[in-house]
Amino acid sequence: MSLLITNIGELFTNDDLQPASDAAVVVDGERIAWVGPATEAPAADERIDAEGRAVLPGFVDSHAHLMFAGDRASEFAARMAGEPYTGGGIRTTVGATRSASDEELRRNARRLVGEALRQGTTTLEIKSGYGLNVPDEARSLRIAAEFTGETTFLGAHVVPAEFADRPDEYVALVSGPMLAAAAPHAKWVDVFVERGAFDEDQARTILTAGIRAGLGVRVHGNQLGPGPGVQLAVELGAASVDHCTHLSDVDVAALAGQGGTVATLLPGAEFSTRSPYPDARRLLDAGVTVALATDCNPGSSYTSSMAFCIALAVREMRMTPSEAVRAATLGGARALRRDDLGRIGVGARADLLILDAPSHLHLAYRPGVPLIRTVISNGVPQ
Amino acid sequence: MSLLITNIGELFTNDDLQPASDAAVVVDGERIAWVGPATEAPAADERIDAEGRAVLPGFVDSHAHLMFAGDRASEFAARMAGEPYTGGGIRTTVGATRSASDEELRRNARRLVGEALRQGTTTLEIKSGYGLNVPDEARSLRIAAEFTGETTFLGAHVVPAEFADRPDEYVALVSGPMLAAAAPHAKWVDVFVERGAFDEDQARTILTAGIRAGLGVRVHGNQLGPGPGVQLAVELGAASVDHCTHLSDVDVAALAGQGGTVATLLPGAEFSTRSPYPDARRLLDAGVTVALATDCNPGSSYTSSMAFCIALAVREMRMTPSEAVRAATLGGARALRRDDLGRIGVGARADLLILDAPSHLHLAYRPGVPLIRTVISNGVPQ
Ligand SMILES: [Zn+2]
Ligand SMILES: [Zn+2]
Repeated sequence: MSLLITNIGELFTNDDLQPASDAAVVVDGERIAWVGPATEAPAADERIDAEGRAVLPGFVDSHAHLMFAGDRASEFAARMAGEPYTGGGIRTTVGATRSASDEELRRNARRLVGEALRQGTTTLEIKSGYGLNVPDEARSLRIAAEFTGETTFLGAHVVPAEFADRPDEYVALVSGPMLAAAAPHAKWVDVFVERGAFDEDQARTILTAGIRAGLGVRVHGNQLGPGPGVQLAVELGAASVDHCTHLSDVDVAALAGQGGTVATLLPGAEFSTRSPYPDARRLLDAGVTVALATDCNPGSSYTSSMAFCIALAVREMRMTPSEAVRAATLGGARALRRDDLGRIGVGARADLLILDAPSHLHLAYRPGVPLIRTVISNGVPQ
Repeated sequence: MSLLITNIGELFTNDDLQPASDAAVVVDGERIAWVGPATEAPAADERIDAEGRAVLPGFVDSHAHLMFAGDRASEFAARMAGEPYTGGGIRTTVGATRSASDEELRRNARRLVGEALRQGTTTLEIKSGYGLNVPDEARSLRIAAEFTGETTFLGAHVVPAEFADRPDEYVALVSGPMLAAAAPHAKWVDVFVERGAFDEDQARTILTAGIRAGLGVRVHGNQLGPGPGVQLAVELGAASVDHCTHLSDVDVAALAGQGGTVATLLPGAEFSTRSPYPDARRLLDAGVTVALATDCNPGSSYTSSMAFCIALAVREMRMTPSEAVRAATLGGARALRRDDLGRIGVGARADLLILDAPSHLHLAYRPGVPLIRTVISNGVPQ
């Protein structure tokens, strides 16, 4: 089936050649087949009149932790009342996740994937990391793969309580039997490189094992303080290093000096932990490719709203609205090494949003307002 | 028609006597007829199963500027890029509003009222203030009254360009012929008391004229710097003084030392102008009644989302989630001197929300996510 979208108020393509005015888009099956002036548009089976609204690529949320059970609303309320964030709360979710049935995990993920899709997220990465043993990490990824091809093995999220006094045994488990059980369901391997989680040597062990198992590399790094995460990510050719709140000049230079590792910023986490925001301006000005993602998880950032992250990026991280929308679409695609996503160009996957607004600017200008009017996912209006 | 709501996970009543568990609510026509344990609930014509979700009063947005035409998205983008906020942009909207037809103003207000209702706002105050001449202020209020009983005459929003060198003539116009034309359509009179807008004497002239015309008093005060707004509001028995960002100890004492004037905080304005937030904690700890509202307007706060304001109040103003939800419901009702709104109790208007969440905490815990599942307005599920 082909679909023609006309009367577009603003077409935000992320491609260099932007149609001057009165643009139209043709979708054929699952792909974008044509972009150009409406007067020259080919015929199509169906037609959507955008009535002057803005059209942009679907959001690519390249960082989400959706395989869990339970919530931590009261921990959130306590933290907001002044209790400091320690990250220890992850273990609460590990207990709930291990106790949940497959169907409970599936239902919770389905709820959040649906919620994200209604808010314009047409591609979603999903991490494990609340199982932290062989069977629960493996089933988390098996279920995640029902929802997305972008699955990430995060056995190295935190050392579980039962390994608290023998972390190196846990590293051996993660990089050995757990990886073996997880790899058939995973595309990526990820490690939380942070004081209190995994150090540089432990992370290198796990990530290189992941590479040998055929997985791509992602890293959680430099969230709570300075650390080796960014440089390790660049050294190992990671697709993305995520958080990037506490960066040295050497870290920024490492990210700027090569082509492959995206800096993914997760301002929902800083919002919900009342922490300082990363300096997006510094990264952009250095020429680093920046992505925005939600970090959706029940502990430190329980938002599924990419639009909210865009508004925060503009308010708190001094990105322009255009930079923020680009980071939430094309940036996320680059962080997943997907050249078929995050842009409106011939051959790209037909993931498109029509806003209830005339311009992409409104995503930051109208914070909190649900502005996603129409979602077209893989060529299909939802 | 009567309606029974059962299987409520959490009932956030704002009343002192909270049902211990397994609460139910009965709506009869436009009113709440019964609140108590589900096992004792009377029969009703229809039934809603809340399936364990939270139920709370509809939001009362006591401060919104919805009578305008056009938008100022590019001014917003420029400000976010570092240009300071001066407030001069109001005149842009005045030009667009004066040029708009009645039907354009009505359609824009209808769009925003509908958008707010879908997000749980069941009562909305609407101000004039972009006409700034006799016919355009009068028609703004006449059209606003089609949407709400809570209409506010804000001819004293800013001195329009044509009176720039004779502000006292403008004050005479506002408190004379403009008030006379506006009063039949207005419940409230409001003045923007701020350096660059109206000073204490000018505000007193306009507000006392409004009182003589039978209107209740509201004040915009202490937003951009210290000033006389709060104390003038208390002196004149205003229902609310709004913004309250820059307060002296005397201001706080004035608000705490009496029963009638609510401090309405508008964190959307600080978010969208990158300004320091008001200190809600100081006001609450002093015993002041606090309301939260959107300040929805195309210049400094183009959000219609009360949930977003709640999330900001918790993150940025150190309100607890309960205090923030209370301020967005009962606080708004007090700011409008309405004892039939903002609470779930027998006799109150049947304005109720069912969240897509088990607790009111999720409104702050899940920022940006549209969590309003069901809106019951005036007894009618929307
Ligand atoms: Zn994460
Ligand atoms: Zn205002």
